[in-house]
Amino acid sequence: EVTPEPVTPEEATPAEDGSEGWARSLQMTRIVVIGGVAAGMSAASQAKRRSPESEVIVLERGEHVSYGACGMPYNIEDPERSIDDLVVMSADTFRSKRGIDVRTRHEVLSIDPAGKTLTIWDLADDREYSQPWDRLIIATGARAFRPSIPGLDLAGVFPLRALSDGAAIKEFLELQQPRRAAIVGAGFIGMEMSEALRLRGLDVVILEREDQVLPGFHPAVAEAVAAELDENGVRVRTGVSVRSLERNGAGLKLHTDSGTEVVDLVLVSAGVRPNTALAKAAGVALGRTGAIKVDDHLRTNLADIYAAGDCAEAWNRVRQDNDWVPLGTTANKQGKIAGANAAGADLRFAGILGTAGFKVFELEVGRSGLGPDDLAGIDAVAVVSKQRSKGHGSPGSQTITSVVFAERGSERLLGVQMVGKAPVALRVDVFAAALQAGMTIAEVEELDLAYAPPIAPVYDPILIAATVTRKKLAAGAPTAAAP
Amino acid sequence: EVTPEPVTPEEATPAEDGSEGWARSLQMTRIVVIGGVAAGMSAASQAKRRSPESEVIVLERGEHVSYGACGMPYNIEDPERSIDDLVVMSADTFRSKRGIDVRTRHEVLSIDPAGKTLTIWDLADDREYSQPWDRLIIATGARAFRPSIPGLDLAGVFPLRALSDGAAIKEFLELQQPRRAAIVGAGFIGMEMSEALRLRGLDVVILEREDQVLPGFHPAVAEAVAAELDENGVRVRTGVSVRSLERNGAGLKLHTDSGTEVVDLVLVSAGVRPNTALAKAAGVALGRTGAIKVDDHLRTNLADIYAAGDCAEAWNRVRQDNDWVPLGTTANKQGKIAGANAAGADLRFAGILGTAGFKVFELEVGRSGLGPDDLAGIDAVAVVSKQRSKGHGSPGSQTITSVVFAERGSERLLGVQMVGKAPVALRVDVFAAALQAGMTIAEVEELDLAYAPPIAPVYDPILIAATVTRKKLAAGAPTAAAP
Repeated sequence: EVTPEPVTPEEATPAEDGSEGWARSLQMTRIVVIGGVAAGMSAASQAKRRSPESEVIVLERGEHVSYGACGMPYNIEDPERSIDDLVVMSADTFRSKRGIDVRTRHEVLSIDPAGKTLTIWDLADDREYSQPWDRLIIATGARAFRPSIPGLDLAGVFPLRALSDGAAIKEFLELQQPRRAAIVGAGFIGMEMSEALRLRGLDVVILEREDQVLPGFHPAVAEAVAAELDENGVRVRTGVSVRSLERNGAGLKLHTDSGTEVVDLVLVSAGVRPNTALAKAAGVALGRTGAIKVDDHLRTNLADIYAAGDCAEAWNRVRQDNDWVPLGTTANKQGKIAGANAAGADLRFAGILGTAGFKVFELEVGRSGLGPDDLAGIDAVAVVSKQRSKGHGSPGSQTITSVVFAERGSERLLGVQMVGKAPVALRVDVFAAALQAGMTIAEVEELDLAYAPPIAPVYDPILIAATVTRKKLAAGAPTAAAP
Repeated sequence: EVTPEPVTPEEATPAEDGSEGWARSLQMTRIVVIGGVAAGMSAASQAKRRSPESEVIVLERGEHVSYGACGMPYNIEDPERSIDDLVVMSADTFRSKRGIDVRTRHEVLSIDPAGKTLTIWDLADDREYSQPWDRLIIATGARAFRPSIPGLDLAGVFPLRALSDGAAIKEFLELQQPRRAAIVGAGFIGMEMSEALRLRGLDVVILEREDQVLPGFHPAVAEAVAAELDENGVRVRTGVSVRSLERNGAGLKLHTDSGTEVVDLVLVSAGVRPNTALAKAAGVALGRTGAIKVDDHLRTNLADIYAAGDCAEAWNRVRQDNDWVPLGTTANKQGKIAGANAAGADLRFAGILGTAGFKVFELEVGRSGLGPDDLAGIDAVAVVSKQRSKGHGSPGSQTITSVVFAERGSERLLGVQMVGKAPVALRVDVFAAALQAGMTIAEVEELDLAYAPPIAPVYDPILIAATVTRKKLAAGAPTAAAP
């Protein structure tokens, strides 16, 4: 990682008043970042790189900065791996190598936008202090949603969000040797953790309130995932609400609206919510989604305050509207841009497509663009098709299920979801490129893609999915969602 | 595979003169296809599907039609698999199920474009006959290039092009139990066959006239492939020309310009040439590349004569010029369009990007767009970068080497080549979508791609390769090839 820009835009451009004050104020610039995970550390690194003379401070409530939170389920799966493996760079390294003043276990209590100060609680020394800033970046992330279920504070009940959550689960697995686990919520994390816990030898049941696993995915994808869970001995119960938890001897009893489950460990993975209380209290405007509203430069409504990552909205290039899709990829990119802009750059965040992927056992799942829940007001079709993953007669060829969302009339690609025991996430990436380019289904069908029998069939699943979609559009397939 | 079009365009549109003759002439239409592999059978199937009342005839010199030629090395690798596994659909099935008059072992001797007839030699019955046609599709494919080396006709020397070549190699392996093989030419087929023969237990040496394996690929890719060959016990000799072959006891002696090799089997994979003699003799114009010149409807210069597949050129969307890149993907697509148009449709072939991929041992290789040999007259950079294939701390992460070709000034993406023990061909497909859309490097960098530790790092190799390229462009990297 080398910076290509020999100078920051501020250095290259003289101050407007041509005064000496310009150089001095630049030297004095204090860029303060609240939150030290993906967006926060990307922001701090980029700010320091572009403006080495600035003082860059990171305030992180937890013990660790810069860790790969998305890797936690895969880490938990392996008893030999330390959870600390996920730390990409330690706070010490950021201090010594990058000259960033990283303060872990420092919680920001309030932001004063007018006075440009923060009130901070130093958890280690148990003291409060005030910290001035010139530019502020809010990267407070998201938290695990905590449903209002009595008993969620019992021992053996865990969320999985911070590295400390992962560490606690790993320690519990080690010390308590639980045999049975319940996972509340069948989203990405629930899926990944069902695999992790199953591979750690536990009996696993997933309890999902909605009628299918992976709410937000097309039923054809959800069914393939449910089948894979079943094949791997994970019990799935959909349409079930947990009412309360109580202690049951050494274990836990979950009362649901249809019966009880007795387990030793409960993972609550019922979605996440943006951490916005601090920002909101300071007068930072939130968007339609409830996350912090930002412009294409990641500026909030308040002067010199930026926001990035899971606490903030992002421009959705397909919807052409702000959206909230908390993902590590977006957090890293937004952090980089917010950090650069706080250091005087003039960078634009191009936006997201909502591309995401995960693995559960042998199955890969991916999506990009709009899904079934995003089609209100759009005359769209959702076309399911099945393909083989490899060339004719090639051993190990698997079935891929694709769902393509397309607009009737314009025949524009709107989104895709794919699932299979084969590389589908990278195929979703091809659709993502097509989405960014605003391609029609016919244009996707024209793509010249690589073919070799062990890699892909002569007509890649992408092309077949596009062809089937074009034919369905021509034949007048029913609209996927009523406007 | 269902046809979406309820009627052919001819059925939907009344004849211009409104005469009865229209319906009659439609019924009488004879669509004749020369060549029955990828392009030919795609053309015939499409023609028959769109115009069921037409007589569709396929003339194939060989014994088999519709086989996956690209799968031959992988089939040869496995002694348990029959070579016939590669036949996707038999001539009999085409006859009975699709109503296509497939005539194998029928060689076309000449085309009479004025009289609209063919002179055909029926190899089985050893007789010559004349066949009238209304529309003709030339899908004669390409042949293995036969260098002018004395001794190429000795027993134990093989090309690999037709299914019969694959069958002959497989039989030779079975019956003669050769221990040592030489492969002349280090292109795709040479690479794939080195793996196949190695896995069949042979000592393998590759002899390549150029200074590197995979001529046309960037040296960074070639080096990675050479290392993989070496790791798998394949001896590679570059910059070596074979002068002659002679019998040497039960084996063969190859005389080169630097020493000799004694082996039991020789595979000649020194490239392919388009089969154009028949077309040329009839007055069909060839293009700059030596292959048959076609327009975007795959029409040749002669009325009612189309060409498709490895014998024909294709529009290269990146070069914006006709090109000759013989590949199964293009052959299938061109065949489909030529067949549809011969049956009265009005379809356009959008063109190619030159996307291709293959596997050799654990290594995957892919390319799309322009390569190092295609940059004459373009002010371009070739930027090599290395990435990790998976997320931080994810087991099994591998190094991917990427070479991005970009135009200086416009900063437009021109091409990519990637290699690694990881999925790179599908990543090349993402670049292919970007190439089709005419994206700049900055736009590639904006792609929102899937991230999950076991699938990809938070910044996918695609994005890192784009970032490094943008930085090199900004820093004024040297021009890749002098104009």
